[in-house]
Amino acid sequence: MSNTYANKQVLLASRPVGMPTEQNFEFKDIPVEPVQSGQVVVRTHYLSVDPYMRGRMSDAKSYITPFALNEVIAGGIVGEVVESKDDSLSVGDKVIGMLGWQLYNTVDAKLVRKIDDSIAPISAYLSVLGLTGLTAYFGLLDIGQPQEGEAVVVSGAAGSVGMLVGQIAKIKGARVVGIAGSDEKCNYLTKELGFDAALNYKTTKDLRTSLEQACPQGVDVYFDNVGGSISDAVMSLLNDHARIPLCGAISSYNSTDGDVGPRIQSKLIKTRSRIQGFVLSDYAARQGEGLQQLGTWLSEGKLKYEETIVDGFENVIDAFLQLFQGTNLGKMLVRVHKA
Amino acid sequence: MSNTYANKQVLLASRPVGMPTEQNFEFKDIPVEPVQSGQVVVRTHYLSVDPYMRGRMSDAKSYITPFALNEVIAGGIVGEVVESKDDSLSVGDKVIGMLGWQLYNTVDAKLVRKIDDSIAPISAYLSVLGLTGLTAYFGLLDIGQPQEGEAVVVSGAAGSVGMLVGQIAKIKGARVVGIAGSDEKCNYLTKELGFDAALNYKTTKDLRTSLEQACPQGVDVYFDNVGGSISDAVMSLLNDHARIPLCGAISSYNSTDGDVGPRIQSKLIKTRSRIQGFVLSDYAARQGEGLQQLGTWLSEGKLKYEETIVDGFENVIDAFLQLFQGTNLGKMLVRVHKA
Repeated sequence: MSNTYANKQVLLASRPVGMPTEQNFEFKDIPVEPVQSGQVVVRTHYLSVDPYMRGRMSDAKSYITPFALNEVIAGGIVGEVVESKDDSLSVGDKVIGMLGWQLYNTVDAKLVRKIDDSIAPISAYLSVLGLTGLTAYFGLLDIGQPQEGEAVVVSGAAGSVGMLVGQIAKIKGARVVGIAGSDEKCNYLTKELGFDAALNYKTTKDLRTSLEQACPQGVDVYFDNVGGSISDAVMSLLNDHARIPLCGAISSYNSTDGDVGPRIQSKLIKTRSRIQGFVLSDYAARQGEGLQQLGTWLSEGKLKYEETIVDGFENVIDAFLQLFQGTNLGKMLVRVHKA
Repeated sequence: MSNTYANKQVLLASRPVGMPTEQNFEFKDIPVEPVQSGQVVVRTHYLSVDPYMRGRMSDAKSYITPFALNEVIAGGIVGEVVESKDDSLSVGDKVIGMLGWQLYNTVDAKLVRKIDDSIAPISAYLSVLGLTGLTAYFGLLDIGQPQEGEAVVVSGAAGSVGMLVGQIAKIKGARVVGIAGSDEKCNYLTKELGFDAALNYKTTKDLRTSLEQACPQGVDVYFDNVGGSISDAVMSLLNDHARIPLCGAISSYNSTDGDVGPRIQSKLIKTRSRIQGFVLSDYAARQGEGLQQLGTWLSEGKLKYEETIVDGFENVIDAFLQLFQGTNLGKMLVRVHKA
């Protein structure tokens, strides 16, 4: 019986103003919902915490509906089928889906997708072989369009999207400069991932000048994960016909002061540059193409990925909040159950 | 003999800081340069003053080389051939070109283009049938891509580019809202040009709220001629997948305080919108297509244009400076010689 499992879930208790705190969330013990025909029960192994989820905690108009108050938070999860009343999935199958932040999800079988743990560890489906990889792939290649020899700058470079963006740009023959928040991250980017240069924005006295030295020919593509003053510095160095895929603006997600800085319109006009926000759902039809290419690069050893793993369901809020401190190298995951 | 004409030219005497003044320019009497084989002497009839020229008066990096100090300023000019040593042009021909701000230009015949004054008055080649028309045409249709029923907002709407943008958007079936700087201009836009609404930014207490009322379904295309706080207000109302052709940022051209405002990255991400600077030279290969369509619409009565004419070569600096006061309705021109 499903309800013999002890389930636990995380609700959004109140909408955060500025930086979220533990008080905005509530852990709740509940029975597992009984499984109906066509459904499966999925035991959570890994749970993805992502900066974009901060947006869903507010009720402002956005591309994605806000989380409802006092309802379970939803995010990327990989897990294992522990009960099945659908022919398409068997107990033991590993699956991925956008599911509730809880120990067990009882859902329609078609809301999850079976994954192959012989290709890569299942956690990889929450990063390089999942939304993270596709975000880097389409944002960089479709909007950024880096050409051989061009200079690509990526902010949040040691995050899960950023480090893939830099590596894909290298595959395409670009010169890649990463911006990250510690010397350790910067060393990792240049020594392990082959970035041409990496700048620690926290210790660099004058980011614009350092960037200018790292990109003496200017910036052709800026993949922006952070926004704010870091982006102000990069924007000042754009070359003609630069392309700026806007993936995130983590520096402003918790801002309560209006996020003010130099207007960029004049620079965009002078350089005839294009800046474009995107979300992955715009590329739903091309998901297969992206996953296939990412899988190929991964198997060829051309792409590396990193995970920062926090153990324990009870630490999910802490893991989410750490995203805004930048403590993670690569994908931030919560391991709920060790297989 | 060429040098029997009394020529006069305008030099850039010093680079303006902030708003230019008469002191940044110098009028100089010089002989007309003798005409060589392959050259013509063109007598200036109309001279175009344009906001983009402010950029060339600075020496900052841009898409177009700065004016040299103590050399003649160059701009769009229509005039008449008064001497010819080239078979392609005869005395009396009307021509257009990027020529010096002077009474007579002695230039290679291939640097000017013959225009047909039976189609439209020659001054029209400096607006609707010239760079202004093409800027509106390509910026709106290629970058803005307005669809039937969408909401198009244009700033600087009573300027030469803006009023064509609004009319072309109407031809394409969009709902058009203009932003301009006087009630007289706003009345002209709605009553004469068929704009659906027009807002006087100088007297509207809360531009954002008024825009929201004028665009209850949000903004799909924003053709930006002005930048600054007007654009801040429009950007806050973008719909998903909005397109923002950046044509000009006249509000910041004379700014010396850094042009600071709300950062737009988060809004662009939430709405997956695209903002793109452009200059007409990017569309050089398609110029014929644009001029043909503009000519057709003009002859069909679907496009109207306006000119604000300042008489006298000695008033060219004043006419240029008036652009930044917004005194012009439609294209600002200086009439140097009445044909």
